[in-house]
Amino acid sequence: MPDKIPSDSVGLVSPQTHHFDQPLDLVSGAVIQEYDLAYETYGKLNQAKSNAILICHALSSNHHVAGYNTPDDKKPGWWENFIGPGKPIDTNKFYVVGSNNLGGCFGSTGPSSINPDSDKPFGPDFPIVTVKDWVQSQARLSDVLGIEQWAAVIGGSLGGMQVLQWSIDYPDRLRHAITIAAAAKLTAQNIGFNEVARQAIVTDSDFHKGRFYDHNTEPSRGLRIARMLGHITYLSDDSMREKFGRQLRDERIDFGYEVEFEIESYLRYQADSFVGKFDANTYLLMTKALDYFDPASDYDNDLAKAISHAKANFLVVSFTGDWRFAPSRAREIVKALHDNNLNVSYAEIKATHGHDAFLMKIPHYMEIFGAYMERVASEL
Amino acid sequence: MPDKIPSDSVGLVSPQTHHFDQPLDLVSGAVIQEYDLAYETYGKLNQAKSNAILICHALSSNHHVAGYNTPDDKKPGWWENFIGPGKPIDTNKFYVVGSNNLGGCFGSTGPSSINPDSDKPFGPDFPIVTVKDWVQSQARLSDVLGIEQWAAVIGGSLGGMQVLQWSIDYPDRLRHAITIAAAAKLTAQNIGFNEVARQAIVTDSDFHKGRFYDHNTEPSRGLRIARMLGHITYLSDDSMREKFGRQLRDERIDFGYEVEFEIESYLRYQADSFVGKFDANTYLLMTKALDYFDPASDYDNDLAKAISHAKANFLVVSFTGDWRFAPSRAREIVKALHDNNLNVSYAEIKATHGHDAFLMKIPHYMEIFGAYMERVASEL
Repeated sequence: MPDKIPSDSVGLVSPQTHHFDQPLDLVSGAVIQEYDLAYETYGKLNQAKSNAILICHALSSNHHVAGYNTPDDKKPGWWENFIGPGKPIDTNKFYVVGSNNLGGCFGSTGPSSINPDSDKPFGPDFPIVTVKDWVQSQARLSDVLGIEQWAAVIGGSLGGMQVLQWSIDYPDRLRHAITIAAAAKLTAQNIGFNEVARQAIVTDSDFHKGRFYDHNTEPSRGLRIARMLGHITYLSDDSMREKFGRQLRDERIDFGYEVEFEIESYLRYQADSFVGKFDANTYLLMTKALDYFDPASDYDNDLAKAISHAKANFLVVSFTGDWRFAPSRAREIVKALHDNNLNVSYAEIKATHGHDAFLMKIPHYMEIFGAYMERVASEL
Repeated sequence: MPDKIPSDSVGLVSPQTHHFDQPLDLVSGAVIQEYDLAYETYGKLNQAKSNAILICHALSSNHHVAGYNTPDDKKPGWWENFIGPGKPIDTNKFYVVGSNNLGGCFGSTGPSSINPDSDKPFGPDFPIVTVKDWVQSQARLSDVLGIEQWAAVIGGSLGGMQVLQWSIDYPDRLRHAITIAAAAKLTAQNIGFNEVARQAIVTDSDFHKGRFYDHNTEPSRGLRIARMLGHITYLSDDSMREKFGRQLRDERIDFGYEVEFEIESYLRYQADSFVGKFDANTYLLMTKALDYFDPASDYDNDLAKAISHAKANFLVVSFTGDWRFAPSRAREIVKALHDNNLNVSYAEIKATHGHDAFLMKIPHYMEIFGAYMERVASEL
């Protein structure tokens, strides 16, 4: 933590956990008998319970969205840029909830949690959950928190997919849906990258068919590869050129296989710092949830039909440099919303940062996001 | 082999090998004392020795460019579409030479060859070779074949880089330089993908610091990952959408980690059929040669300066769907050539196929290539 917590931070925050003892029926047909969801909240729920905002997280993140968990934390939550007093998601006005997705590895029940039936980690016995399942579990958390209707449900990337699913499955339970750097389904290329990541993990000799916990190890080599690859898809060719170019780490080429170019150093560093912090089975599960997400598939592949019962007002944001979920993918969502005569604001932000732009303080993005949230606040 | 060899094929061809006993000084400072180069030739060298064409290969291919090596071959050489009687590179007119790059694993000396000093495979003791080294070794092969000047040196991808280096290092030894789907240097993103592939190989527990031959194994898991990733970068988002989309292999989703989407099946198949046929150390070495290629780096990063002594006439071809070496990268080459008042024909072919387009029978591409080669033939 910085010597002094910045005045626009929510400051020290504590994660909470709720235990759900009602079985959850999953899309796959599997049932989770009981489970925990970890979450954090910032700001105060008003008396009308009308000012609650749900933040849905992306593949590798969690419920720690803003503030600091301990005085020793070097970094705040992953969306600190956007959440806090006076920030676009203003905690003086809103009650903000971040929850860790089911199947995760940061407090919610997932493959690394202890299976009460065996007293060992679930591992591969933990069922694959989908975006729809997450949204159902988040709706139950809403009930626990006494939130009948969210002022807004907000998310970037995989989080934006959850937002879309919320608007479809619980049309009366959110007034605004904000989906950022997302798509209504993955392309073959997106699935291909996920499959490479998964194959790297499951073919690692330390994977042990997902029961690596029992062997006191983890498929760290596979997870490293998955994370390196992920980072390439989070950045853009342009942003990598700006950040690293062909810059060498030392003055000269060594003609060997140690780090030579700065980009190699960056990728290895990102990979090394991920291993030990993230569960490999959760990584597999999250990529599968991404692959499967396709709300139109039950509606003759017609997204407009899938979303025809939605009632929320939408803000859709995309970034020009995002080749993972390019603006053209966001425009598919916008078209489906327009086809249903829903209120849609769409912003295509000029940014070279790639997919990761949704995390960044890009002035035009902050402005548009902030203005939209002021509108949401003005309705309270 | 098909029941009957097509009449426009060069037919049955035999690879040849030449042993070079003069040491080769490499860019790295290392020296290869002696080495073999494997090559194939098609067509007949004319008396003036003016009709010779050198084909330079890309990362994973070799000297078997056209025709069939045995009556049992199911597939012809990798550029059969372009080389043969009546084809763009017409073997009725030209004498065509394909050689396997030094460091390769198809007959030329490389990491999997026996080191005469130890009677074991070189493995990591085989030095890293660069594009410049390959061109030097190919120039020596030209001497052996009695070819003072090539009518054209031609290559796609990494092969196109060799073409560019030929025009720089041996300006008097080629009349035409044809570079296809290439770039004058890799971007950080390109290097990033190569680094992921390398890390997958070197962290495979069967890699044994490159001495896997001594353990009767190979880092097949890592090589599989490298190949899967490679294939994603060879195709385009569009071509993958057309070819596979979100097509499932079976009717329904299985909620498991076996193949579900067709794209997963394709990538696994490509990977599985690569393993056992390609040497992992060669893969590492080839990606390094790609990373290092940057002829401008010795000339204040000014490509025009690097190429200022070139004399060849150029055909530069790029493909709109190629995101690995996009048309903008080809235009950098064209600009540097123009800056030197060289004759340049540039074709940007509209094609959704991605990087692999350079291998394909795309009508507009075939036409332009064929017309250019007729011009080369007309000068004989």
